[in-house]
Amino acid sequence: MFDSGLGGLTVVRALREALPNEDVVYLGDTARVPYGTKGAATVVRYAIGCTKYLVDRGVKAVVIACNTVSAVAPERLRIEFDLPVLGVIDPGARAAVAASVTGRIGVLATTGTVASGAYARAVQQYSTRAEVFSQAAPLLVPLAEEGWTEGEVPNLIIDRYLLPLREANVDALVLGCTHYPLLRPAIELRARALLGQSVNVVDSAQSAAADVADFLRTRQMQNERGDRGTLELLVTDLPATFETIATRFLGERVSGTTQVNL
Amino acid sequence: MFDSGLGGLTVVRALREALPNEDVVYLGDTARVPYGTKGAATVVRYAIGCTKYLVDRGVKAVVIACNTVSAVAPERLRIEFDLPVLGVIDPGARAAVAASVTGRIGVLATTGTVASGAYARAVQQYSTRAEVFSQAAPLLVPLAEEGWTEGEVPNLIIDRYLLPLREANVDALVLGCTHYPLLRPAIELRARALLGQSVNVVDSAQSAAADVADFLRTRQMQNERGDRGTLELLVTDLPATFETIATRFLGERVSGTTQVNL
Repeated sequence: MFDSGLGGLTVVRALREALPNEDVVYLGDTARVPYGTKGAATVVRYAIGCTKYLVDRGVKAVVIACNTVSAVAPERLRIEFDLPVLGVIDPGARAAVAASVTGRIGVLATTGTVASGAYARAVQQYSTRAEVFSQAAPLLVPLAEEGWTEGEVPNLIIDRYLLPLREANVDALVLGCTHYPLLRPAIELRARALLGQSVNVVDSAQSAAADVADFLRTRQMQNERGDRGTLELLVTDLPATFETIATRFLGERVSGTTQVNL
Repeated sequence: MFDSGLGGLTVVRALREALPNEDVVYLGDTARVPYGTKGAATVVRYAIGCTKYLVDRGVKAVVIACNTVSAVAPERLRIEFDLPVLGVIDPGARAAVAASVTGRIGVLATTGTVASGAYARAVQQYSTRAEVFSQAAPLLVPLAEEGWTEGEVPNLIIDRYLLPLREANVDALVLGCTHYPLLRPAIELRARALLGQSVNVVDSAQSAAADVADFLRTRQMQNERGDRGTLELLVTDLPATFETIATRFLGERVSGTTQVNL
């Protein structure tokens, strides 16, 4: 699995719950984080570098644990590399279609993911009737990284991002960035208040983990051994800062992170 | 001049006011922005790449229009390259010593700049008596880029970052990141309320521009011609997003930005 930084650890966490026996190699490109504000060509270039590293490490499948990369790079990675490449947007879109009654789906995401229009395209594969309303929410990533996840300030910031989605009258809300699950309680609270009590919040990290589990089981690619799988954490910048924040994202104590050069 | 992204345009703006005849080549490393959350070795590597590009372009001096780079890279750049390299921290520290009566100086900056301890070291050169209290303020950069520079949310966020500096009883406050001048009215307002009416706010971007002007004049390196100097803008990611936000930072309309590969 790879991500621009540490947000993808929410996918790792969900994946290790769904598939406890799999060995996971996680690569966080912390030297170039964030990808969310960058152009598609730059993100594709970085994604190729990350995938090449993981392929050289001998993985059996690559999970893009990042919405921004999943928005622009999966097709290119599937052409360049001869192994399964799974992203987070397709499962998130499918779950959103299932979660929406009216077919009006809101998406909170980074500037890059919103600009790509990827959620609208993915949703169209599962419902021709559904409509997607996307809102870029650049302040949510630093809020999650700061651990400033409840109280007046996150609530006010979330409200600002939800107001255009209230105008659009959505009844499902996708957390379209792997950082956002840390703010999920606050987002759910404000979504219920502004979008209505019946709004369904869809976590793309959880949807992606379920999708990977399905994929491996269907193809009988899952690890059959009985003991708990290993987790190896690799980053491209200094591990120290990463480990402090990563513990919150992963929900377990992080140590032994290794720095690599891409 | 170079910066991790577009914050350095506040230094460009101040420099073009101080030295209207100079031709400025500005390189924003937007493909790898931000530097502020990254480790020193990574930042030094990126800074060498940016400086090499400018030196190959034939500039007469390099201005590091970024606090994070100025905190960790100037000495290394002076060793690697044979031309004057000027940063923003040294002039900011000097201005802070001049602005403080009690010698208790507060600094708001990125995580990287705070971790480097660079302001404390720089202040010691100008006053052995002065004490520096630094506060990392990671939410201020996305606030400035979003243009969310006044009202309840920026005020609450600024208050949170100023509270530890109130405990420290500072009477001068350095804006130790080139993004922060966009938030200057809000920061001054909250600083007066929390730190006292007599607090002096020091803008490292303005101090740096004045320092470059002094440097060039003292060495008779300034451009002698009468007409207004040119401004060339280069970025490493897509220019479109850059130009939208850059207009706010530069205070004049931005167009014709060119993308380069480092």
